[in-house]
Amino acid sequence: MTIFSRRDIPLKELVNGDQLSLTLFEFQGEKVGPHVHIQASVHGAEVQGNLVIYELMQFFSRHDFVGKITFIPCSNPMGMNSKSGTSTLGRFNNVTGDNWNRVFDDIAFDYDDFVSRHLSLPWKELKNSFKKEFYQTINLKLKTLEERGLSENKKWALLLQKEASQADIVLDFHTGPISTNYLYTAEDFFPLSLDLNFPHHIVIPSEFAGAMDEATFMPWIKLKKALVKAQRTMPSDTEVYTLELGSEETINSERAKRYCLSLLHFLKKRGVVTSELPPLDVVTKRYKTKLANYRCYHAPHGGLVEYLKAPGEVVLEGEALASFLNFKTITTLQSVSEAQKVFKAPKDALIINRCPSSNVTQGMELFFVMEEFELI
Amino acid sequence: MTIFSRRDIPLKELVNGDQLSLTLFEFQGEKVGPHVHIQASVHGAEVQGNLVIYELMQFFSRHDFVGKITFIPCSNPMGMNSKSGTSTLGRFNNVTGDNWNRVFDDIAFDYDDFVSRHLSLPWKELKNSFKKEFYQTINLKLKTLEERGLSENKKWALLLQKEASQADIVLDFHTGPISTNYLYTAEDFFPLSLDLNFPHHIVIPSEFAGAMDEATFMPWIKLKKALVKAQRTMPSDTEVYTLELGSEETINSERAKRYCLSLLHFLKKRGVVTSELPPLDVVTKRYKTKLANYRCYHAPHGGLVEYLKAPGEVVLEGEALASFLNFKTITTLQSVSEAQKVFKAPKDALIINRCPSSNVTQGMELFFVMEEFELI
Amino acid sequence: MTIFSRRDIPLKELVNGDQLSLTLFEFQGEKVGPHVHIQASVHGAEVQGNLVIYELMQFFSRHDFVGKITFIPCSNPMGMNSKSGTSTLGRFNNVTGDNWNRVFDDIAFDYDDFVSRHLSLPWKELKNSFKKEFYQTINLKLKTLEERGLSENKKWALLLQKEASQADIVLDFHTGPISTNYLYTAEDFFPLSLDLNFPHHIVIPSEFAGAMDEATFMPWIKLKKALVKAQRTMPSDTEVYTLELGSEETINSERAKRYCLSLLHFLKKRGVVTSELPPLDVVTKRYKTKLANYRCYHAPHGGLVEYLKAPGEVVLEGEALASFLNFKTITTLQSVSEAQKVFKAPKDALIINRCPSSNVTQGMELFFVMEEFELI
Amino acid sequence: MTIFSRRDIPLKELVNGDQLSLTLFEFQGEKVGPHVHIQASVHGAEVQGNLVIYELMQFFSRHDFVGKITFIPCSNPMGMNSKSGTSTLGRFNNVTGDNWNRVFDDIAFDYDDFVSRHLSLPWKELKNSFKKEFYQTINLKLKTLEERGLSENKKWALLLQKEASQADIVLDFHTGPISTNYLYTAEDFFPLSLDLNFPHHIVIPSEFAGAMDEATFMPWIKLKKALVKAQRTMPSDTEVYTLELGSEETINSERAKRYCLSLLHFLKKRGVVTSELPPLDVVTKRYKTKLANYRCYHAPHGGLVEYLKAPGEVVLEGEALASFLNFKTITTLQSVSEAQKVFKAPKDALIINRCPSSNVTQGMELFFVMEEFELI
Repeated sequence: MTIFSRRDIPLKELVNGDQLSLTLFEFQGEKVGPHVHIQASVHGAEVQGNLVIYELMQFFSRHDFVGKITFIPCSNPMGMNSKSGTSTLGRFNNVTGDNWNRVFDDIAFDYDDFVSRHLSLPWKELKNSFKKEFYQTINLKLKTLEERGLSENKKWALLLQKEASQADIVLDFHTGPISTNYLYTAEDFFPLSLDLNFPHHIVIPSEFAGAMDEATFMPWIKLKKALVKAQRTMPSDTEVYTLELGSEETINSERAKRYCLSLLHFLKKRGVVTSELPPLDVVTKRYKTKLANYRCYHAPHGGLVEYLKAPGEVVLEGEALASFLNFKTITTLQSVSEAQKVFKAPKDALIINRCPSSNVTQGMELFFVMEEFELI
Repeated sequence: MTIFSRRDIPLKELVNGDQLSLTLFEFQGEKVGPHVHIQASVHGAEVQGNLVIYELMQFFSRHDFVGKITFIPCSNPMGMNSKSGTSTLGRFNNVTGDNWNRVFDDIAFDYDDFVSRHLSLPWKELKNSFKKEFYQTINLKLKTLEERGLSENKKWALLLQKEASQADIVLDFHTGPISTNYLYTAEDFFPLSLDLNFPHHIVIPSEFAGAMDEATFMPWIKLKKALVKAQRTMPSDTEVYTLELGSEETINSERAKRYCLSLLHFLKKRGVVTSELPPLDVVTKRYKTKLANYRCYHAPHGGLVEYLKAPGEVVLEGEALASFLNFKTITTLQSVSEAQKVFKAPKDALIINRCPSSNVTQGMELFFVMEEFELI
Repeated sequence: MTIFSRRDIPLKELVNGDQLSLTLFEFQGEKVGPHVHIQASVHGAEVQGNLVIYELMQFFSRHDFVGKITFIPCSNPMGMNSKSGTSTLGRFNNVTGDNWNRVFDDIAFDYDDFVSRHLSLPWKELKNSFKKEFYQTINLKLKTLEERGLSENKKWALLLQKEASQADIVLDFHTGPISTNYLYTAEDFFPLSLDLNFPHHIVIPSEFAGAMDEATFMPWIKLKKALVKAQRTMPSDTEVYTLELGSEETINSERAKRYCLSLLHFLKKRGVVTSELPPLDVVTKRYKTKLANYRCYHAPHGGLVEYLKAPGEVVLEGEALASFLNFKTITTLQSVSEAQKVFKAPKDALIINRCPSSNVTQGMELFFVMEEFELI
Repeated sequence: MTIFSRRDIPLKELVNGDQLSLTLFEFQGEKVGPHVHIQASVHGAEVQGNLVIYELMQFFSRHDFVGKITFIPCSNPMGMNSKSGTSTLGRFNNVTGDNWNRVFDDIAFDYDDFVSRHLSLPWKELKNSFKKEFYQTINLKLKTLEERGLSENKKWALLLQKEASQADIVLDFHTGPISTNYLYTAEDFFPLSLDLNFPHHIVIPSEFAGAMDEATFMPWIKLKKALVKAQRTMPSDTEVYTLELGSEETINSERAKRYCLSLLHFLKKRGVVTSELPPLDVVTKRYKTKLANYRCYHAPHGGLVEYLKAPGEVVLEGEALASFLNFKTITTLQSVSEAQKVFKAPKDALIINRCPSSNVTQGMELFFVMEEFELI
């Protein structure tokens, strides 16, 4: 039978003494197996993932499975509660400006030393030892930093990293602004990421640049390198993905159920789900590009913008992407009809997401697109 | 031939010495007739009206017409440029918190004295004298207030009121958050507002409460009363409406063209448009309610909200309106399935607009609805 | 012996399920006497009052006294926790824009009916009955409003009003931006307010305009009128003041101790404090003006402002109050020296507070002053 | 005679079509000499430098001098105009969250190639050629980036870098929050920075990390390396400093005049100022530390903070730095006196700046200090 537990992790004491906390739910299957860790809303407005977590929690509360699953829904209470007007200013810390998904930590760890001490262990035991030592390393770092007071960003990041470092499979649920479905996969996991049934794959280098996924997969990639150096191979049973589940500021249970089914099929392939599942509506066209070709088109003008192409659409170089209206250009009856300027696609591109507002000042992010995209 | 002119009205000197300004466009037809004044974006995120203005400007730049039309698109540069993250914090002044559509002024004017001085004039001349004196009154008020430095809100409000006070027909283009189409009409204009081809009519008392429309129609209503007191009637050739053109933060030219056509048909009925027009797609079901029955339903919980009913829909008392998800209620495997609470309609209601975010703290405005609505 | 109790009042469920709450502390003296209610930080950045409350709580935890004292420090958790950069955006609700001290409620209550039912009671009993019925009225209003979901502002306001309605003496601790010490007193309490040892008294009409103090004293003033109508007098043993304790965003314990001592002397005069107190440093010059003469001077320009006069200072008409620097006016070597414009006092005035920033856009509130001030 | 010119550089088109622009003032002395570039307010709330620029402009408009001086006051119109309540949210872009002083660009330039092409030139000519080619490189980068629309941050950064790249001496005026005077100097300039008469020197590595000063001095340092590789030395006649002129959100002309005098003496040492100057009030105690020892102490608790030590003060390990008040810890009469927690200095430290607010949530930046500071 599934064992359920819940941990409330104090996160932030507010000015008036109230507290924000993380809540982690653990579902422990009867049989030992992979540890899957799933979280949502690292960016506060990106909430759809919570509904997917809720669907998954309902499934695993009713079905036996193998291994362990930990969930941290609402993983960024600071971001989620940061309202400005009715919208959620959850992309960055509103005190420091730091993008919440760029504050994760590149934990210092002596991989070669670890490998030299554990080289003879079978993989499962070595892996567990690694998790244990990595966990202790993060705890030690937290303690050291506390000496001068722990920054809000760092504390939060390390607490999330600590949990994710214990898992074999980590899924970090995000969304775009107005967005199609896409995922970020490290080069090392690329062919595996296809099992997630996502249409768009952005392949990122196996490097650290401050994001949660990078902070979580880099230890495994570095361990692998150290093992290889010590002439031992490492099985491919760790995976870390950032999944972008459509648009921000909105939740929809029908779409959540579809994401949930894709994820259950993925977890069945990984041996976690053992039940029969309804058949999957398989994505037929799948695209990938390298991170370097995932490009931002910025607003060349300020003005009122009408978006002429939608996320998921392919545009050819020169096609109209958006129309900018600026009344200050009107000076005569004749110039009335010329107040709109069209922004044309500078390259062939597949639109991934776009700015959610038509009120755009010059230089704002307008579209993110895949250039040089390939059908897989 | 149509005479075009443009006036740039300095509005606000910024910290670094740059300026924000209003731009007013005037289209003067060959024949004398009604003066129509149209503005958009008193609330900065409510931008669809600008596109409608643009459609109208294009029409009037190509077609002869009777009277005069003044347009102030982007009538609130402060609100429109107030970005917080990608969204527009344009509902209230972000320094003072004042709702931009509650800062208009209840200009003191001696209506009885005016009437006593002009009682013998024919209506057209009396009306013009009234406009002239009212204009001077606002100018005087601006000058008096300048003595102690003019507040940003007051200066802006008075500049807009001054322009609108010169018109016979005033249309103030707003939008809701996520919203259907509706309008506000004073009781005095109610049967006339049907000419605008809008599905939902909120009938407001003929009183001043700080809004642009009220500030603009109250002088006419007070003049009417003073005339009646002096035993003279006043023709119904002044009208003021606030039109809510769908949802905020977005513009759409197809919808703009449809609004434009409705407005041209309206202006044809008022004798301004003289050209042939394409036939109108007439709204078949039209509802009204009193302002007192235009009610807000606030979020009874905090949590992630899925909206189960859309603007334009009618719900019956007890029907599910929204579903709130709160993970902190989950304490056991069994309680997983009980983390969602349904918010039920407290009354029969017609949904007019809703909060654009699924990130909702307890007590936020969730839905605005018409209760006690009547099919007209 | 003093009986201590604490009540935590749930206030607001956040998006992630965490809670904000009010905490009320009650100190009950051995002998029956006046009920004093003290709260701080209705505006979130105005925090000095909390330190004064802390001083008072320490005093009353160590000294016997007569009556009952309730404290609500940090009475606006929403405002206090609303950070934007390092500063506190606590003046208005950052979702709705409503000034936190303009959302209080003008509770409907049938004073004449109440008086007719209790006219024969001795004052103490009548007063207690009034408090009881008023409390029930607020509870009923809360319940009624809950039907359609209770707005955040309204819930918070009614919860605070409910507590304050039970007290005889209510002190609401605020601060100005950069500010001297001043207080707001209703006309009815004016001579009594001198006991508070404050230098500046703004005398407000006995009317309701949305503020906490008005919401709290109006029921007593209306009760008095109803009693007078029934030919009975009402003793002057209820008092309500808003005290402005210097500048916002900062706390200082030395100044807190001085305010505390003034308040203890005040409460000694009201029979609450019975202990010996250290002598008071009595304010020697005390000024008052009517609310209508408490005026705002708005910035006539945008630019970098140097404040040339400080709160507490008296200026004569024509004296330099502030200097505005605007580089965009410089076009030649000669005009370099003319880029500063002086803003002169439009009237003789006593400066009460000023804008805390030198970054000022045209039309911002620059100074609040007393005009037509009188030495008492 | 001094030649004055002014350039207005279009920076950002707003939603409503109005514009923000940079204004650059150039003072050209009669005799050829160093080019000094001075700017202020890269962070929008850090405004004191503008007043210092104004003092300098007044001096140079009245006195002959050698060389050329360019000024960009109000160099960040976006930041300066970003008000939230009365305070200025000018530290980061309020759409993207990017810290304005971390968006500068590490321009790619082939230093070895340049040196190989110009090795034989005398230093003055080589330097001028370098400035010219670097200017063209930035222009080319701007053009290339425009292809996909130029981001607001990047455009602004490159425009400022382009101007600064033409100067020999660059001074970037900032302030801290509540702060003493200090400066950032690259290791390469350290002994020279003492001429600026500042009490506190933070010595930063000669590396690029996104700041304006780094973006400006790295080209010179890389050029020097390339010259050394080609066995040629480079004179030390280029210098770049970030000066922190006290506290943000405020300007004071008396302090501005003092900074101005220090800078004029500095420029006299560099041969720019040739007039007699009033004697300087020389700073007697000067401290330095490495950037690695410039540490942030974060708030270990949330609560109301009283700052017990001020910028400029030296504290010993264990001394009280701040006191946190949290009412929620009070549960009994006895615990009233224990609601304050003292935050003690974790190390010996010299306080450089502190948070400007007493409203502090857990993990906010409380103090920045120099540890391991040395008296120079």
